[in-house]
Amino acid sequence: MARVVVDVMLKPEILDPQGQAIVGACDRLGFKGVAQVRQGKRFEVEVDGEVDDAKLADVRRLAETLLANPVIEDFELRVE
Amino acid sequence: MARVVVDVMLKPEILDPQGQAIVGACDRLGFKGVAQVRQGKRFEVEVDGEVDDAKLADVRRLAETLLANPVIEDFELRVE
Repeated sequence: MARVVVDVMLKPEILDPQGQAIVGACDRLGFKGVAQVRQGKRFEVEVDGEVDDAKLADVRRLAETLLANPVIEDFELRVE
Repeated sequence: MARVVVDVMLKPEILDPQGQAIVGACDRLGFKGVAQVRQGKRFEVEVDGEVDDAKLADVRRLAETLLANPVIEDFELRVE
């Protein structure tokens, strides 16, 4: 069993109102020095057996079609 | 400007219906070999200046109070 982590973040040019709300809350709660926050998603995908190139390509296709919206989001894969 | 990444995941003993729904969708879409998926959140926190121990402690407090629910979620900090 191996784990592939898929990090999905909004593209830099897409507004992130959730992140902006967190920055506003930081100010109100007294956390100084927080310039920007962006919120995204993290998926931990457990795959059977070892992660070879074919498995990784499968997870990439999975991320493109199911986990991320490639119009507004970027994603990164990481084997852990 | 430095970036601290906060990964927030449900604790292992907490059910993750979103992850289970993704596993079900994998089956229907023909992605074989996906045993388990857990969905969490990823926050990219940009802080002013360098990240020293005090800043990191601030971000940890921020994660505990605002970004994660410590009753059901674990979080990890990573300086990038």
